[in-house]
Amino acid sequence: MSIPLKISGFADYSEKENRLMGQWKKNLEDIYRLFGFMSFNPRPVESIAALQLKGGISHQIYTLGRLQDGTMTDLALPFDRTVPLAIYVAARRQELIYPFKRFDISHSFRGERPQAGRFRGFIQADVDIIEENLSVFSEIECLNALQQGLASLNIPPFTIYINHIEIPKFLIQEMGVPTELMPDALRIVDKMDKIGRDGVEKELLAMNIPLNLENLDVMGYKGSAEGFFKTYGSKYESLPGFSYLQNLVSMLDSPNFSFHPGMVRGLDYYTGIVYETTLNEYPQFGSISSGGRYNKLIDSIVNCETRLEGFGISIGLTRLFDVLKKQDLLPKQATPAAQVAVAFRELSLRKGALEAATALRKEGITVDLCSSGEKVSIGKQITYADKKEIRYVFMLMGETYVIKDLPNSTQTEDISTLALAVEKMKKLLDGS
Amino acid sequence: MSIPLKISGFADYSEKENRLMGQWKKNLEDIYRLFGFMSFNPRPVESIAALQLKGGISHQIYTLGRLQDGTMTDLALPFDRTVPLAIYVAARRQELIYPFKRFDISHSFRGERPQAGRFRGFIQADVDIIEENLSVFSEIECLNALQQGLASLNIPPFTIYINHIEIPKFLIQEMGVPTELMPDALRIVDKMDKIGRDGVEKELLAMNIPLNLENLDVMGYKGSAEGFFKTYGSKYESLPGFSYLQNLVSMLDSPNFSFHPGMVRGLDYYTGIVYETTLNEYPQFGSISSGGRYNKLIDSIVNCETRLEGFGISIGLTRLFDVLKKQDLLPKQATPAAQVAVAFRELSLRKGALEAATALRKEGITVDLCSSGEKVSIGKQITYADKKEIRYVFMLMGETYVIKDLPNSTQTEDISTLALAVEKMKKLLDGS
Repeated sequence: MSIPLKISGFADYSEKENRLMGQWKKNLEDIYRLFGFMSFNPRPVESIAALQLKGGISHQIYTLGRLQDGTMTDLALPFDRTVPLAIYVAARRQELIYPFKRFDISHSFRGERPQAGRFRGFIQADVDIIEENLSVFSEIECLNALQQGLASLNIPPFTIYINHIEIPKFLIQEMGVPTELMPDALRIVDKMDKIGRDGVEKELLAMNIPLNLENLDVMGYKGSAEGFFKTYGSKYESLPGFSYLQNLVSMLDSPNFSFHPGMVRGLDYYTGIVYETTLNEYPQFGSISSGGRYNKLIDSIVNCETRLEGFGISIGLTRLFDVLKKQDLLPKQATPAAQVAVAFRELSLRKGALEAATALRKEGITVDLCSSGEKVSIGKQITYADKKEIRYVFMLMGETYVIKDLPNSTQTEDISTLALAVEKMKKLLDGS
Repeated sequence: MSIPLKISGFADYSEKENRLMGQWKKNLEDIYRLFGFMSFNPRPVESIAALQLKGGISHQIYTLGRLQDGTMTDLALPFDRTVPLAIYVAARRQELIYPFKRFDISHSFRGERPQAGRFRGFIQADVDIIEENLSVFSEIECLNALQQGLASLNIPPFTIYINHIEIPKFLIQEMGVPTELMPDALRIVDKMDKIGRDGVEKELLAMNIPLNLENLDVMGYKGSAEGFFKTYGSKYESLPGFSYLQNLVSMLDSPNFSFHPGMVRGLDYYTGIVYETTLNEYPQFGSISSGGRYNKLIDSIVNCETRLEGFGISIGLTRLFDVLKKQDLLPKQATPAAQVAVAFRELSLRKGALEAATALRKEGITVDLCSSGEKVSIGKQITYADKKEIRYVFMLMGETYVIKDLPNSTQTEDISTLALAVEKMKKLLDGS
């Protein structure tokens, strides 16, 4: 029987692409740790009932069955990382120390039929803060972590658009949209980037909504909060949510943030600040990261008032990787798995090579002991290091040590002892 | 409708336990990186057909179905990390750079019915090397990484027992076991730790196998290779696989390794060196880490000769955590999510607190900006840091900065500028 080696809807990366994705994950982890978020992954499955609470059906949940007896279980694979977090917090709400801050870089699933360009399993990098009466300070921490995290991926310039969900709600209401049509109207306005201003007007008219052109203008704005006032005057200062958002934006210290009063995001979770992110030169890629404030999610799980509110950010790593790859925009450099490759001129030096690797690792240097074959020449070991993009080859010559810098095609003089060679290696890595 | 907040068969950790598990994973990742392994996770699902190749049925595979239309798919969740790796390598065998070295810390699944003490989803930490004609050198790298990895978990003393699968095969054959009964006989001998020498003799006799008591003795041995010769003389030097194993053990530089000629492990994969690990004082916990050489796995997937051979180690993190937790043997300390908590005396210092956090993070210090509430006193912020086990509180007092060392109940004098306070913080963290 033949085994299918590829599965549609799941990323299939080359060795180097995997290296790059691994580096992305590590860069994000490092930055999230700098911000004091703990590594926390909820269990990898949840009950179907829990996942159905929040828009689960529409995401075509994957359920689990048992192969052996063909029975179904009541378990399913989560379609995001936020609902599993909320379930965990709901279960342990009496004992957690708030604010509860976590990061989580793992898979989510959509049980869709195979089709081109749709991922059925994908990696998201999430950061969340949950606490009683969550304050703007937590949102700032998350958004700053996001901004630095995205910058660490070495991707093309991006903008994080921020909004308060009450702003478009008010502006649309002011246009005379009846309450029952609000969700539809919000959804239409949110498509302005895709279908254009004309498209939005047409769709709203089709719903018999009296248009208010100024309000549509306002919702099309993208820029700084100060710029917004210059354009539209101060009459919008009393918009619900606006002063909250202004206070937030004033404390965000990066030009990557921008205000966009027409942005809505999904309506399932969000109750306050929302954001989404686009690549400046490639708006057609859509949002590469989005999230916001979810104040009612935990309440909805335990079916009582907890006052536990959440704010979360999420980067769609698999999707971002995919769109950049298709446009040849992925960073050309992927950090190699090791800083140094240890090589040796003859088999009798094997034990010495092990000792050298141990000595280098004790200094915190990542080392690939590259040759494991019985009859591998030092030339082949160097070729191996070069293919793996490892910069330095630390060579045992017999009586001496020599360090090769591959990209620069230079090498040291003969060094007489292991201790001196390790010292030299440290200095080269420090750039001194 | 009420939502089940707990799911049997999946770990349910407290905040602190999650912190400890996160630290375990990070410690292992750091060590695996030191050994030059790249972070590589294959896709999270595989085809049912591929998983059935290697003992899949017996592990009660979880299959995936679609909730929306109730249909089954041809996908399932992997029961280990080795088969998904082998499938990836098989698919890209022409283009990978060998040796292909990876680590992978993620979930595996067993579609069992809920029952106490059995995990249906669990984390394994794997390291593998795959190459043509894999040499003993690769096995040494893996086993050294394992030894250092386990030591980094701060668990009770352990021993890694190593064997060559040909040794027990030969010893049992010599006892006169017919070929068709070999698998059963190996399985029985492998149970010696559990059912004792008497139990093994009884079960072998029940199969009408003529006992060879010396061979059973030999298979019960646990200790150094030199000790083995002292006990049994040199007549066993020509055992198949023995000189290979002796060469391997001579290059392993740690007292945690031991030779155990009766150890077999599963028969599905293994073709050479195998190992398993037990806690010295708690042999009843069984093996907490095991693995070995698998020379035929990739061939069996592509159904042709590739000469690609593998060696892998695997630590059962969820299971190890569970047995230690039940015996109250978990490490008492779990690294906090941040080294420093930034706190401020009044709300007007918020922006300054953000600046201080940014300055500390620029120095690579992990910082929790602990208070996000509107009316949180500095006392409550210190209590928060203490609960989260963060050692230092970096306090903005208004005109000055003060650093508190919580476990030692000491604090610095007033420091006049942020730059000086950051300098002082770095020195305290360096222990100087």
